[in-house]
Amino acid sequence: MSGRLAVVGLGPGDPRWLTPEAEAALGSAAALYGYGPYLDRIPQRSGQVRHASDNREEGARAAAALRHAAGGAEVAVVSGGDPGVFAMAAAVCAEIETGPPEWRDIELAVIPGITAMLAVAAQVGAPLGHDFCALSLSDNLKPWEAIERRLDAAAGAGFVIALYNPVSRARPWQLAAAFERLGRHLPATAPVIFGRAVGRIGERIAVTRLSAARETAAEIGADMATLVIVGSPETRVIERAGRRPLVYTPRAAAGANL
Amino acid sequence: MSGRLAVVGLGPGDPRWLTPEAEAALGSAAALYGYGPYLDRIPQRSGQVRHASDNREEGARAAAALRHAAGGAEVAVVSGGDPGVFAMAAAVCAEIETGPPEWRDIELAVIPGITAMLAVAAQVGAPLGHDFCALSLSDNLKPWEAIERRLDAAAGAGFVIALYNPVSRARPWQLAAAFERLGRHLPATAPVIFGRAVGRIGERIAVTRLSAARETAAEIGADMATLVIVGSPETRVIERAGRRPLVYTPRAAAGANL
Repeated sequence: MSGRLAVVGLGPGDPRWLTPEAEAALGSAAALYGYGPYLDRIPQRSGQVRHASDNREEGARAAAALRHAAGGAEVAVVSGGDPGVFAMAAAVCAEIETGPPEWRDIELAVIPGITAMLAVAAQVGAPLGHDFCALSLSDNLKPWEAIERRLDAAAGAGFVIALYNPVSRARPWQLAAAFERLGRHLPATAPVIFGRAVGRIGERIAVTRLSAARETAAEIGADMATLVIVGSPETRVIERAGRRPLVYTPRAAAGANL
Repeated sequence: MSGRLAVVGLGPGDPRWLTPEAEAALGSAAALYGYGPYLDRIPQRSGQVRHASDNREEGARAAAALRHAAGGAEVAVVSGGDPGVFAMAAAVCAEIETGPPEWRDIELAVIPGITAMLAVAAQVGAPLGHDFCALSLSDNLKPWEAIERRLDAAAGAGFVIALYNPVSRARPWQLAAAFERLGRHLPATAPVIFGRAVGRIGERIAVTRLSAARETAAEIGADMATLVIVGSPETRVIERAGRRPLVYTPRAAAGANL
C-alpha cells in the first residue's frame, strides 16, 4: 500500500513563477512537509495537514514524509526554488537509499521549479548565457578546501559562477574569501551580481565589479536569501540611462581569452 | 516611443511547466518572434502576428524584434527552456549592445523558464543535488580546445556536468569525444543520464554508466533535443524493482574524494 511523494519546487516565491504542475501537486496532497517560511507561502486548504520543520532538519523531514507516504497517502515536501538544486530532492533520495526497502516502492515525483540563479539572471539580462557553474559556499557539508578547489577550477576555465548559500550567521567570512580567491583568476572588473529575496518582499538587486564586491555584499545585506553571480572575463555590462545596467555573457567565446 | 520586449522561457514544452508570467507575456504580445518549432507550441491568438525563423538566425531574430519594439509595440521573443541558458536572452543583449542607442530605452523583460537540465534531473531524482556545471558541447561558437579545458576543469574538481547541445547533424563526434575526455578524470561507473525531448512527444530517458554512455547515446538517438548529465564520483544510483533507478548527488561531500 505505497503512496506518492511529490518533492515540489516553489520557485523563488512569487506566484508568477509557480508552475501549473507544482500548483496541482500542492492542491492534491493530503499533507505538506517543509521549512516553515516555505510553507507560509502556500495558501491554507481545509483538510490538508502541515508539518513545519527547521531548515537544518532536512533528513528528518524527508524521513517523516516518506513514512507518511509509505502508509498510502499522497504527501508533498516543499522546497524553495528547484528541489533538485541544493535542496530537498537529494535529501529525500538519501533517505530512500538508507531507509526500509518498502520506501523504494513509493511513487516519487520531483517537480522542477525556477531556481534562484535563473530568476536573478533574468533580472539583469543573461549573465548565464554561456557555460556556467552552480556552487554552494556552505562548508557545513564539505571542507572549505574543496570549495577553494572548485572556485579555482571554475574561474580558471572561464565558467560564469553562481554562488548559492553565500553567507549565514554561522558562516560570515566565506563570501569575502571566495571573492579574494576568484580575484586570483579574474580581472578586478569582472561583473558581479547580487540578487537578494528576488520575487519576494525585501528584494534587492545590485550589479557591481569584483573589486567592489565585498563592499556591495555588506551594503545590500547579503545573506542566505542571496544569490551571487560572478561573471567570466567574457561577461559584458551595458549601461542604460535611467535603468539598471544589463549584464550578459555572449554565446560566442572570444578565442583570445581561451 | 519605446515599447517593451519580453524574452520568454517556454520551459521544456509541456504546459505543466509554463509559468504564469510566461503565459501572461505570450497573451499580451502584439507579435511573437522565435524558432518555428517553439512558436508551434503556443496557441494561436487572433490579432497576434508570428515571425518564425531558423534556429541559426538568433542575431537577426533578436534585431527584428528590437526594431519592432522600438516603434512602441509590445513584442515577445520565445525561447525553449530558460531564455538565459544557451538561448535568446544573450542574443538580444548582444544586439542591444551593438545596435542603435534607442534600443537601450526599450523595456526589456527576461522571463525565466524551466531549463532542460532541471527537467531531466527531476525525472531521475536529484543528480544536480550538489555543485554542478552547465556546458554547451557546440564548437560552432568556441574552439573545441576550450570545451576540453572546461571538461577537464569541471570533472577534475568534482562538479556534476550537464551537457547542452551534445550532438547535431553537423557535429556528430563531439559527445563521444567528451565522454572519452571525462573518462580521464571519472570512474567508468560514473552515472550518466540522457533525457531526450523531456515533456514532449518522443520523450526518452536513460540511466547508464560512463563506460556504456557512447552506446546508450546511439540507442536513444541523442540529438539537439537531448540533455546529458554526467555524475561526479559522489553521485549515487538507487535500484528499484519495476521502476527506473533513482540518481542523486548527496548534499554532503565525502571528504575522502575531495
